[in-house]
Amino acid sequence: MNSFSAKVILQQGTIYAENQVIQNGYIKIDDGKIIEVGSLNQLPNTSEYQIINVPDNYSIIPGMIDVHIHGANGSDTMDATKEALDVMASTLPREGTTSFLATTMTEDTDAIDKALQNASDYINSLQTSGQAEIIGIHLEGPFIHKEKAGAQPIKHILQPNVDLFKKWQALADNHIKLVTLAPEQPGGSELLHYLKNQGIVASMAHSEATYDQAIEAIENGVSHITHLFNQMTGLHHRDPGIVGAAFLNKDVMVEIIADGIHVRPEMVKLSFNQITDERMILITDSMRAKWLENGVYDLGGQMVTVKDGKALLDEDTLAGSVLKMKDAFKNIQEFTNCTIKSAIKMTSENPAKQLNLFNRKGSIALGKDADIVVLDEQMDVFMTLCNGKIAFTK
Amino acid sequence: MNSFSAKVILQQGTIYAENQVIQNGYIKIDDGKIIEVGSLNQLPNTSEYQIINVPDNYSIIPGMIDVHIHGANGSDTMDATKEALDVMASTLPREGTTSFLATTMTEDTDAIDKALQNASDYINSLQTSGQAEIIGIHLEGPFIHKEKAGAQPIKHILQPNVDLFKKWQALADNHIKLVTLAPEQPGGSELLHYLKNQGIVASMAHSEATYDQAIEAIENGVSHITHLFNQMTGLHHRDPGIVGAAFLNKDVMVEIIADGIHVRPEMVKLSFNQITDERMILITDSMRAKWLENGVYDLGGQMVTVKDGKALLDEDTLAGSVLKMKDAFKNIQEFTNCTIKSAIKMTSENPAKQLNLFNRKGSIALGKDADIVVLDEQMDVFMTLCNGKIAFTK
Repeated sequence: MNSFSAKVILQQGTIYAENQVIQNGYIKIDDGKIIEVGSLNQLPNTSEYQIINVPDNYSIIPGMIDVHIHGANGSDTMDATKEALDVMASTLPREGTTSFLATTMTEDTDAIDKALQNASDYINSLQTSGQAEIIGIHLEGPFIHKEKAGAQPIKHILQPNVDLFKKWQALADNHIKLVTLAPEQPGGSELLHYLKNQGIVASMAHSEATYDQAIEAIENGVSHITHLFNQMTGLHHRDPGIVGAAFLNKDVMVEIIADGIHVRPEMVKLSFNQITDERMILITDSMRAKWLENGVYDLGGQMVTVKDGKALLDEDTLAGSVLKMKDAFKNIQEFTNCTIKSAIKMTSENPAKQLNLFNRKGSIALGKDADIVVLDEQMDVFMTLCNGKIAFTK
Repeated sequence: MNSFSAKVILQQGTIYAENQVIQNGYIKIDDGKIIEVGSLNQLPNTSEYQIINVPDNYSIIPGMIDVHIHGANGSDTMDATKEALDVMASTLPREGTTSFLATTMTEDTDAIDKALQNASDYINSLQTSGQAEIIGIHLEGPFIHKEKAGAQPIKHILQPNVDLFKKWQALADNHIKLVTLAPEQPGGSELLHYLKNQGIVASMAHSEATYDQAIEAIENGVSHITHLFNQMTGLHHRDPGIVGAAFLNKDVMVEIIADGIHVRPEMVKLSFNQITDERMILITDSMRAKWLENGVYDLGGQMVTVKDGKALLDEDTLAGSVLKMKDAFKNIQEFTNCTIKSAIKMTSENPAKQLNLFNRKGSIALGKDADIVVLDEQMDVFMTLCNGKIAFTK
């Protein structure tokens, strides 16, 4: 990450800092970091600082972290080009996202090789300052179950394979931080043990695991559930499935796509009742069509029709989403009546903690990266700072 | 109900009274009613009273109320004889049940006519003192959906019909207190409105109602869900079904068969998390084989095989249960880690309130019927009093 010389003070509005909510406060930013947070009436020396005045009825929240995003604005992680990742990184601040895991798909191994190599190079040396930061890679598939493929092309599904994973993690220069897999597949346990030993987050979805298998997988190291409800065993009263394990086992963090399409709002509410803001993580799982017009787009070599907020592979199969984080943030409050502080936990704090990055991201606190979003009175994004630089203004 | 002359004092043990838990307390009973509840050291005059000393580590709880029970010990409500109801009423105190709704089944209308007439005669004039009291009739079917018939014979299913219901309620001398139906069936709304106007509890199950239909039915008067999960639309993330309505809508009380067979213990726990002890009601839904050996028994003219705690119509279809209330009471504590006070709410207080009988039953309180169960240190039934008379001792 480049260093920044910009000195900025964000002041007024309502600041949702890590341990307090401050009215008439300020955040002092230097060299990309938060160096002071306090009340305006105690604001010390402001010379040399660019002052940004935020209207009183605006909210200042930590930047959102999307741990599951394939693409946006015409680009996709699987395009495997610097330009594609640049487009994503420069687009996402519009929706309040300041960091993300570039997420791969089930494609042939050459395509995955290239995507991992490209993302790794980008993270290591090509990121542009003042854009959303790629904080790692989410490997979604190919170690999944064909009966729960969803929009992951079945022909490229492979059995969990530690050697192949090691090769990929080497290509990715250790930037794979999260792996979505089907733990019940042959080789699943071995891969889970390896991931656990390596400190990589193992997640279940695209899986036929029964409740008992899901619980066993959690005991073996799974600590995350990918897009709850979608492409997994559901809640049946004689087999609660992966969803039941997500509800009942407090050791897992749980992704949900809160667009009201992948999961009906009432079920988001019910899930929130069970999982609470301690364990829920909002994601987009978006594909390249996000921020573009309705039309037909590619996803993993397949044609996806996007219309009215839905991305469909065919009549019955959703193919990722076109959800924006800012809308997930708004929707979760509408669906569950949760507080803005709860929503912040689910869009910033929980993903940062899950990726072991809470020392650096996930809240507005001293010494942390100045990843900050200003929301207007409609809860729309008014301004986004990435590592202290203005990445978007309305 | 006959009057009693017996004067009894139950003393010591732990008394779970309506608003307090009393160690070293006493309950004074006269003429079938609770006339004093207090601490032993304040016990006034005991002359003329039979004293029952309860060991210190025993628990004294209100009698359990089973709002959904077809049969026990070889007899069934549909047998339509005084003897059958006598067998049920004299057997159930063994399991801690002191009141119940005699529950009918989907059979031909003649059989239902007879069962209603018989139960009505029994309630009006034939009940024996010192047995479990039949506090009304639960009409389960025939106004249900054939796709969710379960063990209700499909050939006798009828569409909801207000005129037929009126005829039955007349035969039953207004003792039908609860009706299980499929509200989405033609005529469902009309019957719901009629039941609501009559103050009869309308309940959903054996129903294909979608979530939206379930919510509409609740708005139209449904205030109860029969055997949650069994024979109804389940929790799907794009249609939460009747189960979702039960979880999310605070206006309904919810029956559950807590035998660990009809619903897996983990799902009982998950349901309890959502529904809480404010709205959950434990039932048995038991058939005549309860308290008998394994074997083959009749249910609604069908052969049911009972083995290892399961009553099966065929390999995949449960046909009621052989669950005893005392075991439901124990199981719910084991499955959910709830307190004994919570379990009491679900076996006594909630069913009494739902049937508008809490002025008379459902707790240990002054002026109420002396329906009392003494549990030993294993939570097994040591003694049961029905309306102040000892109906069972171990």
